[in-house]
Amino acid sequence: MLNIPPRVLHGPGPSPVAPSVLEALAKPCIGHMDPVFMQVMNEVREMLQQVFQTENEMTLACSGTGSAGAQMLMDNLVEPGDTCLIGINGVFGGRLTEKAKRAGGVVTNMTAEWGQVFDQGAIIEKVNELKPKLVAFVHAETSTGALQPFDKLADAVHANGGLLAMDCVTSFSGLPVKIDEWGIDAAYTGTQKCLSCPPGLGPVTLSERAMHKVQNRQSPVNSWYLDLNLVGNYWSGSRAYHHTAPVNMNYALHEALRLVLEEGLEARFARHQAVHEKLKAGLLERGFTYASDPENSLPMLNLVNIPEGVADEAAIRKRLLDEFNLEIGGGLGALAGKCWRIGIMGHGARDENVEMILDSLDKVLG
Amino acid sequence: MLNIPPRVLHGPGPSPVAPSVLEALAKPCIGHMDPVFMQVMNEVREMLQQVFQTENEMTLACSGTGSAGAQMLMDNLVEPGDTCLIGINGVFGGRLTEKAKRAGGVVTNMTAEWGQVFDQGAIIEKVNELKPKLVAFVHAETSTGALQPFDKLADAVHANGGLLAMDCVTSFSGLPVKIDEWGIDAAYTGTQKCLSCPPGLGPVTLSERAMHKVQNRQSPVNSWYLDLNLVGNYWSGSRAYHHTAPVNMNYALHEALRLVLEEGLEARFARHQAVHEKLKAGLLERGFTYASDPENSLPMLNLVNIPEGVADEAAIRKRLLDEFNLEIGGGLGALAGKCWRIGIMGHGARDENVEMILDSLDKVLG
Repeated sequence: MLNIPPRVLHGPGPSPVAPSVLEALAKPCIGHMDPVFMQVMNEVREMLQQVFQTENEMTLACSGTGSAGAQMLMDNLVEPGDTCLIGINGVFGGRLTEKAKRAGGVVTNMTAEWGQVFDQGAIIEKVNELKPKLVAFVHAETSTGALQPFDKLADAVHANGGLLAMDCVTSFSGLPVKIDEWGIDAAYTGTQKCLSCPPGLGPVTLSERAMHKVQNRQSPVNSWYLDLNLVGNYWSGSRAYHHTAPVNMNYALHEALRLVLEEGLEARFARHQAVHEKLKAGLLERGFTYASDPENSLPMLNLVNIPEGVADEAAIRKRLLDEFNLEIGGGLGALAGKCWRIGIMGHGARDENVEMILDSLDKVLG
Repeated sequence: MLNIPPRVLHGPGPSPVAPSVLEALAKPCIGHMDPVFMQVMNEVREMLQQVFQTENEMTLACSGTGSAGAQMLMDNLVEPGDTCLIGINGVFGGRLTEKAKRAGGVVTNMTAEWGQVFDQGAIIEKVNELKPKLVAFVHAETSTGALQPFDKLADAVHANGGLLAMDCVTSFSGLPVKIDEWGIDAAYTGTQKCLSCPPGLGPVTLSERAMHKVQNRQSPVNSWYLDLNLVGNYWSGSRAYHHTAPVNMNYALHEALRLVLEEGLEARFARHQAVHEKLKAGLLERGFTYASDPENSLPMLNLVNIPEGVADEAAIRKRLLDEFNLEIGGGLGALAGKCWRIGIMGHGARDENVEMILDSLDKVLG
């Protein structure tokens, strides 16, 4: 039988999972067409709508990880020849670009320094010039901790006949994600960040405008598995069998969402902010410096420079893991070897966890 | 908190899950790059190799359901313009065709009556005539219970420069699937059939010949998420981060595979056969007739005609579910409303379950 150590997860995700979520995960498996499971799916959709702050009917948990959710949106929303405007200020904007290109999109990129964000006015200017069919930016760059403002973009995108898409993998349920108020047409997230559910599902939401595009494509979606014309019918409408949903993972997501709504969105956002501030104060006190733009940083993901004098950063992280069961994240892409990423997400956003992180750092660095 | 009834799962899958698999599923989540999780992945691969009866290095659990595994193989193995020969004798051959076409394949179909299988000589003749780049058939048609012989095809396929692919979703770990001996280049399965693990992963295996094709494609794989050039590096080789694997689902698969190998493949196959015979005898005794070819039927999936006099078959299945917590499957596609599918898979392939199925049928039909 598997012997799994009790890690304390403070990297970029997965995050610590609440006991009741693991308990839900292990409930008896039932059929993917069972009326009881249909009810679970309905409740998952309704709770996702509340956290996405949307009334979008097409809100569901894609049967793959957050990256599958991203793939689903690009596969469905991009047709061969479609002009796309995609921002790259970290790893995940680059991945969106790659997915859009493979779907046949003609992509123009805006780029910013890793850790920085884009001025919304500059994006709007580019949108007016390019009139892209799809505009996609990353709300919360998991590779850098940057938080992209998103509230002013929709009018320009829509006036030019386009759709606005958002990666909110790391912000979802830890920061406001106002799909309807901001006019977002499509967004995807993962379960293993602020939701504190194990990885394995990719919640997505699409507006009617986005679904109009999907339903009126000239060419079929490349992926049968991720085709929202088919998957959508399984999640609502005709309930036609498409694939066998990951039943138990949906139980876990159900419980994770229930915990989010029981706490309340505003209280949850405030908790993430307060615990972030405690962590930040402790890190600054110890001489750490932040590598991200202080005006536009995520509370739940702290990008810090590796302290001077640390020759082998991977060895430090290995000691944290081996000696304290503590996981923090290394840098990704251009930041590999330069930064650490310390996550404070969901069930792990707690004062005692901050103390544990700081104590452990003291011991391995001191 | 979710209230899930204790269903007894005897449809076409999911199947009853062993308690220790649920226990493994609920073990603490750890990071997807944690050395302990890398070890879990290694062991999952090694155990999958044993059950696939292969030495293929490229053996892994695709981070989606069995349908994602099918999508992964078609996306990676089919390039635009590739000639494909695909058999359709049920729903799943049709789905393979659809996926191959969306990947740009030029598909020729062989068709057989639903419930019947293809003569291998006739397939070989067609292969010699068409010289297809990809030949794909369904080993175990989950929609009909037909068992396609596969042992004589590889030489002709390879001699004509093609690859041989197989759907073994329902047969895997309940019947011999001899990847290397039969010369299969690519196969996919699901976790929720004879493995008796919840749905959510799609084990696949690919030969070196198949990976040579994947690594030398002229065009990129449509799907970034399912690109085996990237996913393969995460599962072995460089271990480069690609996506966040469904960590807990891999624990469950690990335990399900451990149980398979603890029992032993031959003993497990014999158990499925013996329990099938018991069920079949009981069904025939009650006047049921089988709808599948008796010479080429799956032991783990019994396709029976709906008894004469049953006006509303869905109502009978609803009563089985509501009154006895028993799930059996309705017909799919062309067989909807005409047949029932009674699964005897994995942890559910037990004498007492057969008695429970027969007793419940007696009560609702008697």
